[in-house]
Amino acid sequence: MSPIDRLSLNQKTVNALGVMESVDLCQRHNIASIGLWREPVAEHGLDATVELIKKAGLRVSSLCRGGWFTETGPAFEDAIEENRRAIEEAQALEAACLCLVVGGLPDGSKDLDGARDQVRRALGLLVPYAVDRGVTLALEPMNPIYAADRGVLSTLGQALDLCESYGPEVGVMVDSFHVWWDPQLHDQLQRAGSRIVSYQVCDWITPLPADTLLARGMMGDGHIDFATLGSWVADAGYTGDIEVEIFNADIWATDPDQVMATMIDRYTRTSDAAD
Amino acid sequence: MSPIDRLSLNQKTVNALGVMESVDLCQRHNIASIGLWREPVAEHGLDATVELIKKAGLRVSSLCRGGWFTETGPAFEDAIEENRRAIEEAQALEAACLCLVVGGLPDGSKDLDGARDQVRRALGLLVPYAVDRGVTLALEPMNPIYAADRGVLSTLGQALDLCESYGPEVGVMVDSFHVWWDPQLHDQLQRAGSRIVSYQVCDWITPLPADTLLARGMMGDGHIDFATLGSWVADAGYTGDIEVEIFNADIWATDPDQVMATMIDRYTRTSDAAD
Repeated sequence: MSPIDRLSLNQKTVNALGVMESVDLCQRHNIASIGLWREPVAEHGLDATVELIKKAGLRVSSLCRGGWFTETGPAFEDAIEENRRAIEEAQALEAACLCLVVGGLPDGSKDLDGARDQVRRALGLLVPYAVDRGVTLALEPMNPIYAADRGVLSTLGQALDLCESYGPEVGVMVDSFHVWWDPQLHDQLQRAGSRIVSYQVCDWITPLPADTLLARGMMGDGHIDFATLGSWVADAGYTGDIEVEIFNADIWATDPDQVMATMIDRYTRTSDAAD
Repeated sequence: MSPIDRLSLNQKTVNALGVMESVDLCQRHNIASIGLWREPVAEHGLDATVELIKKAGLRVSSLCRGGWFTETGPAFEDAIEENRRAIEEAQALEAACLCLVVGGLPDGSKDLDGARDQVRRALGLLVPYAVDRGVTLALEPMNPIYAADRGVLSTLGQALDLCESYGPEVGVMVDSFHVWWDPQLHDQLQRAGSRIVSYQVCDWITPLPADTLLARGMMGDGHIDFATLGSWVADAGYTGDIEVEIFNADIWATDPDQVMATMIDRYTRTSDAAD
């Protein structure tokens, strides 16, 4: 087994590229799996993307993303409808999972518990739709840095509590950037077991860039011990793809082939224990 | 009881002022408690500060700060020595507690568990020294945004685990900015009970300023529900001072009397449930 057999390129890492160019890039670098985003998929066309992926023989390790459940009233209903579309797309693409970024506090709201209740409510509405289509939903706990404006789901433990009402159709996405600091991480990964349906890697770098959305680094450029984290994820039983998803302005400004070469090199050097 | 009887000004909120000016400011605004920092205290002189505080009739709600335990070798020994000095100062000032910011990962290290072990080791060395001097140590869990470079103590639960080996001489500092997002917050505050030895308030604002160290906002300018948090802290049994500590370049550039007036107004309006 090649050390990069499980490596997946999340499109966001090469943000300037469309679906076609991202697929070409994977093929040039012998990467067998890709994490897709809905917007570029829509731009290329869903059917055309399905065809392209099939022809290239790639796995789709995730579709990013559904979620944004925390509004109330008509905005909530709209979000549910939009997520039904995302589930259909994940089904068509045979994605290993649909990533769910649950959303932050609604404008002007300070009701964190209320926002978290909306996530539970949304799952109740969406899970049957996902089950009917054979799509796995992946709850993504997010670093507390994003709790206010992006994701009120803040820890792996909290995500697993949400999973408990459901079968294997609801799991968790473990993203190193979001969970690396958690003192309960080892125990919650053990608890998660087969609930781990996606493992994403990128590094926590300091000082944080001014735009914290773009604060993620190439593995090895920051503070995360990927060998240890990877071994914990493996010990929990995860054998799926390992997806590199990096939001970073400097990386986005770099030649994609160079990004790919660096990514493969860093992945191989930092993730030994995961393979 | 006046609604501001328990309000304390942490010196950091008016960062440009020395000890004398901060004490004057408290007196002008009828604030009965102050959180001091070691550096301005040293500048004014420890004995002179003790005298000044006594004459002004102020309480010292905390001394900031000890900690920085995560280095190894001689740097660790130096930190222990420095913390002994901090304990002596807290004793002289009759501070309600000595705040401990435990420190981040040592340069180049990715050993988070190792850094956390150093915190435990440091406590073992310092607690007897604190007990002999009647000083309460306050472990400050920090927002995970600072896990790499400032505080590997990331949750209230983790801080309480550390407390368990000790009596009331070790407690926790609950800072709204650091803990507001924690899904376990209510339960861990209940667990904490009398371990809560300090309650600090400031807001979580978005977008985060470029320098995340200065990312804290005046209460009411951000996303934190202080009425709910304050009621949880009160329900846990905390009756001590409520300290406003704000690292924020704009606030530091504002006239201190104006900052004080705003602080009192916002505190009164956002912390109703705490009084």
